[in-house]
Amino acid sequence: MNLTIKKALISVTDNYITTDVQVVNGKITAIAPNLEIIGTEINGENKLLLPGFFNAHTHSSEMWQRGVIPPLPLELWLAHLYDFTPLEVEQIYLSALGTAVETLLSGGTSVVDHLVLIPGKELETIATAVRAYQEVGIRAFIAPLIQDQSLSAGIPNGKAQLNHEPYFRPLAETLAIVEAAVKQFHQPEAGINILVAPTGIQLCSDDLFTGCIALSNKYNLCRHTHLLETKAQEKLAEEKYGCTGVEHLQEIGFLNSGTTLAHCVWLSKSDINILAQTQSTVVHNPLSNLRLGSGIAPIIKYIQAGINVTFGCDGASSNDSQDLLEAIKIGSILHNVTERDYQNWITPRQALGMASLGGAKGLNVENQLGSLTVGKQADLVLYDLNNLSLLPRTDPISLLVLGRPINVVNSAWVNGKQIINNGQITTINVDELRQEIFNRSHWGTQPKSVNVDKLSPHYRQVMGLD
Amino acid sequence: MNLTIKKALISVTDNYITTDVQVVNGKITAIAPNLEIIGTEINGENKLLLPGFFNAHTHSSEMWQRGVIPPLPLELWLAHLYDFTPLEVEQIYLSALGTAVETLLSGGTSVVDHLVLIPGKELETIATAVRAYQEVGIRAFIAPLIQDQSLSAGIPNGKAQLNHEPYFRPLAETLAIVEAAVKQFHQPEAGINILVAPTGIQLCSDDLFTGCIALSNKYNLCRHTHLLETKAQEKLAEEKYGCTGVEHLQEIGFLNSGTTLAHCVWLSKSDINILAQTQSTVVHNPLSNLRLGSGIAPIIKYIQAGINVTFGCDGASSNDSQDLLEAIKIGSILHNVTERDYQNWITPRQALGMASLGGAKGLNVENQLGSLTVGKQADLVLYDLNNLSLLPRTDPISLLVLGRPINVVNSAWVNGKQIINNGQITTINVDELRQEIFNRSHWGTQPKSVNVDKLSPHYRQVMGLD
Repeated sequence: MNLTIKKALISVTDNYITTDVQVVNGKITAIAPNLEIIGTEINGENKLLLPGFFNAHTHSSEMWQRGVIPPLPLELWLAHLYDFTPLEVEQIYLSALGTAVETLLSGGTSVVDHLVLIPGKELETIATAVRAYQEVGIRAFIAPLIQDQSLSAGIPNGKAQLNHEPYFRPLAETLAIVEAAVKQFHQPEAGINILVAPTGIQLCSDDLFTGCIALSNKYNLCRHTHLLETKAQEKLAEEKYGCTGVEHLQEIGFLNSGTTLAHCVWLSKSDINILAQTQSTVVHNPLSNLRLGSGIAPIIKYIQAGINVTFGCDGASSNDSQDLLEAIKIGSILHNVTERDYQNWITPRQALGMASLGGAKGLNVENQLGSLTVGKQADLVLYDLNNLSLLPRTDPISLLVLGRPINVVNSAWVNGKQIINNGQITTINVDELRQEIFNRSHWGTQPKSVNVDKLSPHYRQVMGLD
Repeated sequence: MNLTIKKALISVTDNYITTDVQVVNGKITAIAPNLEIIGTEINGENKLLLPGFFNAHTHSSEMWQRGVIPPLPLELWLAHLYDFTPLEVEQIYLSALGTAVETLLSGGTSVVDHLVLIPGKELETIATAVRAYQEVGIRAFIAPLIQDQSLSAGIPNGKAQLNHEPYFRPLAETLAIVEAAVKQFHQPEAGINILVAPTGIQLCSDDLFTGCIALSNKYNLCRHTHLLETKAQEKLAEEKYGCTGVEHLQEIGFLNSGTTLAHCVWLSKSDINILAQTQSTVVHNPLSNLRLGSGIAPIIKYIQAGINVTFGCDGASSNDSQDLLEAIKIGSILHNVTERDYQNWITPRQALGMASLGGAKGLNVENQLGSLTVGKQADLVLYDLNNLSLLPRTDPISLLVLGRPINVVNSAWVNGKQIINNGQITTINVDELRQEIFNRSHWGTQPKSVNVDKLSPHYRQVMGLD
């Protein structure tokens, strides 16, 4: 766990320097030129050293449905997702490995997995994801995805009177599963964290939220949820609560400085103030928001209001990738078309700060992670600046954020342990993983979904599409 | 130049089949199962065969300024670009090679290079690009970028009375350079095409456009220009012509079925009708339009009006990449946030058609290129479906368009000649290219631009930013 990186390029305020970085017992112990070599010597020449990024919102098992779902808005896309969702524990294992590998190879050293639970095998699902992440060695924030309402309840009623099937699992049982997971697996010092993670206001009762708040307070857990991802959810919140979704979450006490909120596309001015006051974090998932037509989240307004923002890939069937550098690029430049004054546009350096320290803040670990700082844990990524996609040599961070870097991660460490060496994952056999995923799948055109056909007429009507 | 691809997956109407493809003398001669092997045998198993895409708008020498320019809108970005533009012929050679390599490795077999000419070395610039493209073997459409007004004339006056420096080269000389280039280099059968290519209404007189039209008619050349990329250009057209830029180009006879128009972000309803009537092609450059904050081109409206649309990367300093698959992905999903009805969203198959046949149509070669059709020329790309980024096996085209494919081009042929084999460019030494580009550049933060400081006050005033 000890190493010394020699002569790496690192970023300092508005500039770069070439320096050495020493890591002892998983922590950064010195950053200075000409350091004595302790542990393994790493050649940092022609390489850029950055803190690892956070893939701050994904659903690992969606990897199985990558390429499966046709162009549909969230509510119908979800119906399609439910029709073909993975039901085998072994699939959970493989897609968690795949999600970790793609995140690591695009600069991420932490992943927030809003993990879909196999019905009847909930704890086993969580245990399997824990095992996969520990094998790869990525830092994991596992957020078991829970709800207590059935899918159709997530679409606003409009003028219709609809009845929804009751959810199959009682709330108390669901909360007991989360509590059991916390007791068994929550070990921040070992790189495994459990979060409380209602799927969102669209499919969760207040009782579920308050149950999660109680667990969060009891075990000091971070909180994670989807929030106002679509126009339909904005309408639904109004129908359900007579106020905005943000106002309601504040009222019931869900929002605090350890709360990460995925999407936040449809927020009002006063919602923005609430997120700033409560020190909540917005997780920006730009690719999923485009793919599902959810909208462009007003990220520059959030930044101006002082809200902490970080990036996520979202699940691989709404993206359909887990490339964090792609999410950072699009999540930065996308806002240039909504913000008129270029002086407010997100700069590449700002974007990298959001992806690293922004993630750490949202998960209440900014004292331990998110920057190259002596005393912090060594979650580090070394980028090969010799790669054609990062040439010619200009501004390394601008090349990394604005370009389309391919195969640029030379090395990565989590807690000082090397996970990538010379561009290859060292902890698991990626060829075997590839072969397993290959064997368990088959090519074909996108399958038809019964659920989509069932929900479409009402969705089209209530969203004014007919 | 003869080859037989065995057992490749190809796309047929709404489905896939496994079949063989035979190429003789650079043309596709048969597509059927169990074909006799003629020439080299290529193993197509677990691979997807597609027609090569068109990178239908780029400026190769901008590769030198990748990562150089801070977040700025087009008009100020251009000022920065002009300050640091490459002036050595050897740079033109290297950046044309680099542009070709990145295009090929992301599925493109044709490139439209709106080539910036070194003052005083115009023909030499063109000759150098021709040499580079012939060495790599990519099909090249070289569009020498010409204008006859100086940079500041591209910003609307508003209420100010501005004087602009005269352009350094007389118009007749400029047109003579283009004509000389046509005579020396225009050889479609050898894969080199010259286009007439005014930079756009913002910096070109009517005399320049009509001079180009005359050359186009005399030598049967395609036409290429930027069109209404920014809100500022929309204003400028109104100031210059008292009508829209599209109306003016129609009036002077520039628009026809061999005209490709880069960007087209700010078009009116009647402009859309004009493009449809004249059978002009829109080249969509989504990444550049985001990066420069130009806007979201209303591509779905164009498609609905029957306008042919294809994709471009635009120059590498406004993107800052030349990854065509990235442009196709973002150029497809971006419109889901502006078009309310998901039934009109661009499907992955539609996107691939735009990138291949759409490009061929715009360049008047749809009878020879753009689809897997017996009798057409063999510009082909074989994708490795075994790659982790294209797994699990679901719908191959959806994975390719919606995912983030990395290192997936296994083989590529232009006119039946193999350019990529087993993921490696075979015609040039890419490591040497990398080393040359490395040696000619140095890291640093983004440099300051004198021109930007000079033009900013007027730009901010006329665009209402202060």
